[in-house]
Amino acid sequence: MINMGIIGYGYWGPNVVRNFAAVDGVRVISVSDRHPNALKRAQKAHPDIELTTDYREMIASANIHAVAVVTPVSTHFQFAKEALQNGKHIFVEKPFTSTAAQAEELIELADRKNLKIMVDHTFLFTGAVRKIKELVDKDELGNLCYYDSTRVNLGLFQHDVNVIWDLAPHDLSIMDHLIKAKPQAIVATGGNHFTQHEYVAYITIYYADNVIGHLNVNWMSPVKVRTTLLGGEKKMLLWNDLDPDVKIKVYDKGIEIKNKENVYDLLVSYRSGDMWAPRIDQGEALKIEAEYFVDCIENDKTPFNDGKAGLRVVQVLESANKSLKNRGELVYL
Amino acid sequence: MINMGIIGYGYWGPNVVRNFAAVDGVRVISVSDRHPNALKRAQKAHPDIELTTDYREMIASANIHAVAVVTPVSTHFQFAKEALQNGKHIFVEKPFTSTAAQAEELIELADRKNLKIMVDHTFLFTGAVRKIKELVDKDELGNLCYYDSTRVNLGLFQHDVNVIWDLAPHDLSIMDHLIKAKPQAIVATGGNHFTQHEYVAYITIYYADNVIGHLNVNWMSPVKVRTTLLGGEKKMLLWNDLDPDVKIKVYDKGIEIKNKENVYDLLVSYRSGDMWAPRIDQGEALKIEAEYFVDCIENDKTPFNDGKAGLRVVQVLESANKSLKNRGELVYL
Amino acid sequence: MINMGIIGYGYWGPNVVRNFAAVDGVRVISVSDRHPNALKRAQKAHPDIELTTDYREMIASANIHAVAVVTPVSTHFQFAKEALQNGKHIFVEKPFTSTAAQAEELIELADRKNLKIMVDHTFLFTGAVRKIKELVDKDELGNLCYYDSTRVNLGLFQHDVNVIWDLAPHDLSIMDHLIKAKPQAIVATGGNHFTQHEYVAYITIYYADNVIGHLNVNWMSPVKVRTTLLGGEKKMLLWNDLDPDVKIKVYDKGIEIKNKENVYDLLVSYRSGDMWAPRIDQGEALKIEAEYFVDCIENDKTPFNDGKAGLRVVQVLESANKSLKNRGELVYL
Amino acid sequence: MINMGIIGYGYWGPNVVRNFAAVDGVRVISVSDRHPNALKRAQKAHPDIELTTDYREMIASANIHAVAVVTPVSTHFQFAKEALQNGKHIFVEKPFTSTAAQAEELIELADRKNLKIMVDHTFLFTGAVRKIKELVDKDELGNLCYYDSTRVNLGLFQHDVNVIWDLAPHDLSIMDHLIKAKPQAIVATGGNHFTQHEYVAYITIYYADNVIGHLNVNWMSPVKVRTTLLGGEKKMLLWNDLDPDVKIKVYDKGIEIKNKENVYDLLVSYRSGDMWAPRIDQGEALKIEAEYFVDCIENDKTPFNDGKAGLRVVQVLESANKSLKNRGELVYL
Repeated sequence: MINMGIIGYGYWGPNVVRNFAAVDGVRVISVSDRHPNALKRAQKAHPDIELTTDYREMIASANIHAVAVVTPVSTHFQFAKEALQNGKHIFVEKPFTSTAAQAEELIELADRKNLKIMVDHTFLFTGAVRKIKELVDKDELGNLCYYDSTRVNLGLFQHDVNVIWDLAPHDLSIMDHLIKAKPQAIVATGGNHFTQHEYVAYITIYYADNVIGHLNVNWMSPVKVRTTLLGGEKKMLLWNDLDPDVKIKVYDKGIEIKNKENVYDLLVSYRSGDMWAPRIDQGEALKIEAEYFVDCIENDKTPFNDGKAGLRVVQVLESANKSLKNRGELVYL
Repeated sequence: MINMGIIGYGYWGPNVVRNFAAVDGVRVISVSDRHPNALKRAQKAHPDIELTTDYREMIASANIHAVAVVTPVSTHFQFAKEALQNGKHIFVEKPFTSTAAQAEELIELADRKNLKIMVDHTFLFTGAVRKIKELVDKDELGNLCYYDSTRVNLGLFQHDVNVIWDLAPHDLSIMDHLIKAKPQAIVATGGNHFTQHEYVAYITIYYADNVIGHLNVNWMSPVKVRTTLLGGEKKMLLWNDLDPDVKIKVYDKGIEIKNKENVYDLLVSYRSGDMWAPRIDQGEALKIEAEYFVDCIENDKTPFNDGKAGLRVVQVLESANKSLKNRGELVYL
Repeated sequence: MINMGIIGYGYWGPNVVRNFAAVDGVRVISVSDRHPNALKRAQKAHPDIELTTDYREMIASANIHAVAVVTPVSTHFQFAKEALQNGKHIFVEKPFTSTAAQAEELIELADRKNLKIMVDHTFLFTGAVRKIKELVDKDELGNLCYYDSTRVNLGLFQHDVNVIWDLAPHDLSIMDHLIKAKPQAIVATGGNHFTQHEYVAYITIYYADNVIGHLNVNWMSPVKVRTTLLGGEKKMLLWNDLDPDVKIKVYDKGIEIKNKENVYDLLVSYRSGDMWAPRIDQGEALKIEAEYFVDCIENDKTPFNDGKAGLRVVQVLESANKSLKNRGELVYL
Repeated sequence: MINMGIIGYGYWGPNVVRNFAAVDGVRVISVSDRHPNALKRAQKAHPDIELTTDYREMIASANIHAVAVVTPVSTHFQFAKEALQNGKHIFVEKPFTSTAAQAEELIELADRKNLKIMVDHTFLFTGAVRKIKELVDKDELGNLCYYDSTRVNLGLFQHDVNVIWDLAPHDLSIMDHLIKAKPQAIVATGGNHFTQHEYVAYITIYYADNVIGHLNVNWMSPVKVRTTLLGGEKKMLLWNDLDPDVKIKVYDKGIEIKNKENVYDLLVSYRSGDMWAPRIDQGEALKIEAEYFVDCIENDKTPFNDGKAGLRVVQVLESANKSLKNRGELVYL
């Protein structure tokens, strides 16, 4: 039995508490938040959990084996570090940390103390991403050519970070998970208009093997869009995360180049076959992730969404941000 | 009565001939193409038009007042220059020329000889763009924040140009027409995979007044998308050119920033009102453009899609291409 | 302060409890269900509410002023009647009763005892239906020509009733609310295949003034559809209840008939103008309905969804069922 | 070589001429229309075809082997009969005739003279219907439960027939082609409002083996809909004829009934698997049909869309019309 404490009961915290509480082999025994109102809500939903405004009390408790950090990103490092120092496994909200240096320090610390880090890249546990991963691993699409994602909606403007730090971590964790080629360099553009934080950004990632990644993130779109295209040499995939029924469509479409030697006379032919929409598992992603966290601790496995995965996402965020501030400067990873 | 000759009867030429032939005050009296098969098709559709494989014959004819150049872009300059030299007004397919220098030379020549240049930015004459122009001119959207367009589909890979030269001229001519702020610099990214020409590109244009433009063009998408978002300070607009019924939706949505002085405590509120889809005129764009060409000649008007408009588009194409080749280099206009 | 008891804590009961509990001026003090497991769930969600497996205890309590009946339809009559006999106002799940005779007896009883009946026609309190009602009352659409609704999905096959009793009450209550013309006769067709209950049915209602109503209800559709068309003489309306953003579209489209005297030479012209999607209030319908129930009791108002409205829906259900069993027999109302 | 004459060059006639003219082994040598303007249009499109306002001239010509009748339905019988009497094979626009009696007389006459009748049920030759037919024949869907089609749009009100005779023949010919069970009885409802012809109608067809068919046809819908659902015991199919890319979706969804003996305790379980959209052949339907007509004549085959198929559709139309006039009277076939 793993006893957990959760720091932070704001927007996402209640989901973390509810899902960990539902996992066999876990007891959520403590919740900490510095806002008394948050604790009141926690009390109402989970009358049997201990509440405290002092996270140190929780972290120091010998009765706690693992801590989830569900607070704003600027505070992750401090909470995570103290938890590790006190010998706790940690589950940290995405993005992992504010800087790559912080992430590296946490990874080193956890390694030294033989503790697990899991970064809450929730999307990796959705039925949609698990299905895409399965298709990619089976080479259903062929060699990847591009990954192009649009993630736009109206709001919520954040006070402390720009749209890249707010919306891009989702896609960056997914790209890290799916794309085998190594990211090499980044170009980010975008703009601000209303506040000093950019509300719109366009990120291109150059990968090895001529693979291109692109993200379009925007806080000021009249319509909500969550659409990703994956172009493979053999097939192409459209993922519309807002479609309640048919999230993933695999198109048996592609191009074939003949006569490659002679570029002035090359023959491009187009193939257009069936479309296929695999059934997607509907289970709650966070529940599956919580079970995986327990599994990794109990069986001493390294999670694929470990500290290093979190670090890779933070590195891209830092580089993208630097490029954005310098109007598309090419930043090598 | 204006007598016209048309050079080029390939993919687009038949539309140009058909539409000019239907305009009052115009006679299409000659069609030239170096492929005999093209002339056979022209003969069948328009038995009464003179046909020739020698464009010089047409250009030299005293009976011709205006020439339409509907050939691959690499040939525009030569045909257009000779036509101007022979005292003909010209109607030139987009993009206007292969280089800005060529465009400047043609503009200068036309000015000297007091002839009209019209560049076939057909989209400006669609009901959709005319309606958006009307809304922008009436300041229905408020100050523009961004223009974001996606123009992707499967094929057609071009042999002689990359996806920027193939697909971006549409949006660039529309942006030139709609956006009042001046473009200042460009960043373009993208990649090739199958041939030496880039099949996918992402273009960011930095305008004055914090306006951002972005294009996503791709020859290798499993689905066809023609969607543009315009974000204004007052309202936002979604243009889906593939929707047979409701191409333009105006959303009475926006954000308001209060307490701007204090960035740490600024209040962002969201406004969400009605959506409105104005009726779009269904007339054929090229027909309206052809009538406008005649009107400009007969009444000595300068078309808004004149040589200078064509030049501006070519300048952006050249800059975008340069940026693309240098992985997002910032290129000032 | 109105003290309420709720009978039935199955699928819908928890929503009723939660919403009434959130209304100012109401206390939910008792929940009854004959299944101990249901009471356990109620206990967990609402630790402070009294629970009982004996509804008579609740109904007999002098401390209770109003009772909500949230049980299968076959039991509504008994529970509602006993509650009225004990001097309680009642809030009854739709459809009101199994037979029109039962509904009439409850109405008469409530009248005699000066008690309120509200039938839970929840849809009438959604933002969408309230907006349509507002448009109809302002004569925005002109005289109604037809109301055509499709309500299909996969499952849930009911054990005790056919698809008409399961899905049609929603639309029938909305039609009763919106359509001013009187229903005169009904034709219902459909079929069964898997069980003895019809899984698909098509109901036509003939109204006065040449108004036609039609429902398509089906438990065995691969896709979920919730779409209603209202055709008016001036405008037409499309209500797609599954669209998260734009539920209602008003089309400024219509036809005009000229030269009506001469049917062989009549001129029909079509008008096609803007489309307009009014903003819809997002409040939870059941919450608004619960507040209205309290308002009706405290201020002695007759709810528009009173026993008589419930009766009218049951009369149509009975007639439709009779017609269905006799393969489209015309049943007068 | 088959020489054809075409009677009627109105809305559909030009398509018939163009497609037959493109078939190997056919020469369209004569077009007849009583409107000189129609003949002018024919002259412009096909300068080499003989034109006449006197169809009898064409029908009497020994040089003509087959005649296509592309005129209003009320005239089909006369033209077709005279053509058969003159020994011509006939290709007749749908619906075949105005009455079943007329159809029977033509069938008898053709039989006697050993001539072919083909009724232009064009939809049967579309890629979509051919694919559905293939799936049904391979028993991909299992036993059919229902066929439910919606065919609505704004206009075009016809002067001489109601919406059933205008829009229903499409679906009725498809149902005749696809549904193996025999139609037994019909119920049709609907209404008129603007003219004496019904603008909206709902047709239920009761087939053997508990199969149900339903059509929703409407001239006064603000949106165009062309959607058909086929529910099979094994799978279900959605055909959206307006989707430019994905017209047919096959859902691996269904229900299973267990414990059928005990209706009070039967267990219904739902199966939800992949969705699959087969590629659809894009060839022009009328071209394929024209080639089939020639094939049937040259190789003495009986077309599946022969006079008897045309008769079956007319029988249903007559019955539906009778039912409609009597408010849903059950009419046995």
